[in-house]
Amino acid sequence: MQDALHAALLPQGLHDLLPPDAGHEAVIVERALASITAHGYERVKPPLVEYEAGLLAGVGAADRDRIFRLLDPVTQRTMAVRADLTPQIARIAAVRLAHAPRPLRLAYTGEVLRVVGDQLRPERQFRQVGCELIGSLEPTADAEIIALAAETALGIGITGLTVDLALPTLVPALLEAHGITGAARAELETALDRRDASVLAARGDEVGRMLADLVNLAGPVDSALKQFASLALPASAEPDRARLFAVVAQLRGRVPAVPLTIDPVERRGFEFQTGLSFTLFARGVRGELGRGGRYRVAASNEPAVGVTLFSDSLLRALPPPARTLRVFVPVGGDAAKLREQGWITVAALGPVDDARAEAKRLGCTHVWIDAAVSEIA
Amino acid sequence: MQDALHAALLPQGLHDLLPPDAGHEAVIVERALASITAHGYERVKPPLVEYEAGLLAGVGAADRDRIFRLLDPVTQRTMAVRADLTPQIARIAAVRLAHAPRPLRLAYTGEVLRVVGDQLRPERQFRQVGCELIGSLEPTADAEIIALAAETALGIGITGLTVDLALPTLVPALLEAHGITGAARAELETALDRRDASVLAARGDEVGRMLADLVNLAGPVDSALKQFASLALPASAEPDRARLFAVVAQLRGRVPAVPLTIDPVERRGFEFQTGLSFTLFARGVRGELGRGGRYRVAASNEPAVGVTLFSDSLLRALPPPARTLRVFVPVGGDAAKLREQGWITVAALGPVDDARAEAKRLGCTHVWIDAAVSEIA
Repeated sequence: MQDALHAALLPQGLHDLLPPDAGHEAVIVERALASITAHGYERVKPPLVEYEAGLLAGVGAADRDRIFRLLDPVTQRTMAVRADLTPQIARIAAVRLAHAPRPLRLAYTGEVLRVVGDQLRPERQFRQVGCELIGSLEPTADAEIIALAAETALGIGITGLTVDLALPTLVPALLEAHGITGAARAELETALDRRDASVLAARGDEVGRMLADLVNLAGPVDSALKQFASLALPASAEPDRARLFAVVAQLRGRVPAVPLTIDPVERRGFEFQTGLSFTLFARGVRGELGRGGRYRVAASNEPAVGVTLFSDSLLRALPPPARTLRVFVPVGGDAAKLREQGWITVAALGPVDDARAEAKRLGCTHVWIDAAVSEIA
Repeated sequence: MQDALHAALLPQGLHDLLPPDAGHEAVIVERALASITAHGYERVKPPLVEYEAGLLAGVGAADRDRIFRLLDPVTQRTMAVRADLTPQIARIAAVRLAHAPRPLRLAYTGEVLRVVGDQLRPERQFRQVGCELIGSLEPTADAEIIALAAETALGIGITGLTVDLALPTLVPALLEAHGITGAARAELETALDRRDASVLAARGDEVGRMLADLVNLAGPVDSALKQFASLALPASAEPDRARLFAVVAQLRGRVPAVPLTIDPVERRGFEFQTGLSFTLFARGVRGELGRGGRYRVAASNEPAVGVTLFSDSLLRALPPPARTLRVFVPVGGDAAKLREQGWITVAALGPVDDARAEAKRLGCTHVWIDAAVSEIA
């Protein structure tokens, strides 16, 4: 009954977080940000809405069909609610912080809203926590971001973490180098999206074999990189491969315990990335924990790499928080003193007959009675 | 130039928070919430948008002209972006937490968006932090909320704090008791809003004299309450006065150092409150720090009292944060170990000739050099 009423009260894909989840999410987000800012990333906070054009610039182009649009009565221009923070952080880097020294390290958290959810993430609102490293093409920058994302996830208690690497610009470079366009390209892309190596190999030509090899090598990096190293790639695809090898080597040193996998033909959700990209998963948890990769800042064309973690997935991946200790304080008790000692107090608003029973009724774990804190049985 | 470009990039009343303000705001909000949750208030988090009708119920009626409306393509119903969190918390209390024990103490923080700003707060987006105490009519509940708001403001470092009390239901009760309606009532209300005691007294009747007395007694509570006590109020106005006296007496014990003032005819912004209301100010700071008061939960008709603090005013009222210590770590330095020791590290992405110069260029206060942390001159 209450659930049905609730369903009628909130639009699909939008939820209230109740105790203890709302507090737990806040703790997770602050711990993630503490991990990120310890690496020198400084917090910025863009507004929830801004002009549509700003949100859709550069990597923001991915959000064209998922932003809510609003007419601004003040300016009579179309604004939109952000569906992702990265385009906003890129705008801040290029415009507000154009003269700040590079590389520029920025951290953020904020809610995003999407017109429709997708299969793996039906939520239409969630909180992003992330960071962007702007102004460096060094593989060390990619490695810093990926290692930081992994360390942050581990630091908040995620278990079964894996990082899946992708090279979304590799396939386009291969197809271009072989002059494959139009219907032929679309056909290959469909086969790639289905990971259908047999269709690819059945072409019988060099590019078909190479794409089939790329599909087949997907998996743990150790074996994948061995096979990948032996492929005769066109020159235009070499930078992608070189970056991948350099970054994997660094990640082995930085986060040796985190399993790395690679799926070199993965492109979904990376359509606007300009190089090495990645997704974080936790074993057995629905939806990705986070994702990131290389892109170009639209307004300045600077190279950048960043990562975003998703609060809803993190919350699903973690055990519920320990029960909070709360002490009920009857009239006359010194709640302020108990708070100074670190207690969470719940003060009576009037006299009660049985303080212990009232404490229990209010969900307290302790009660102030006979001038001492006593545990509720 | 950058400022002009920035102005063109963001709609009026919407802003980016840059370093160090964004981090400072986050610290302020978390400290305020820590203060609130220490009093047994548990965090909830409603969504940014929900059905329009939900947002406008009860005290939400005040937001009719300031919410942004959105058509939900999924349900084809009108949703809106919240302009205030209190109506959402009231909905959660009445529906999701209908069976939770009373009094119910809920805490929250979140961004709100408004179609237009007002004179004192031109910002169209800001963060609210607050709490609601639901299910009690006791004056102790009002006192708990007001004292908690004041303690929270003091705890985050606000100086020059004052709490201004109002009784928005007093004047309507007086006018009703005297059968004053229509044009006569509108005329009195205009005079009251202008605090024009002479117009009121010029009526020459009992209600005119009483309203003039109420206008004139506004000020510090000590003298105001003495005058207020001597007024011969109609019976329907007695509960308001009794609550005021009871709450002031409790506040003197709870927050003795905080100056209390009263303006019994203040109604602006309290149109949908159902009793004692209040505003927090800091001397010399534009805009109120926060506001709150009594209301009824729309869906359950429960009595409630709450307070909301505004992050933008809090940020304006506080001195800028101390400079963050950051250590630049050249290639080969053990940044992870320094972070374990509590340092914020900024890692080099490649070799540099002069580590000290690079640290300075990047805005670091320290550099890792010769196997030690050294301060930048």
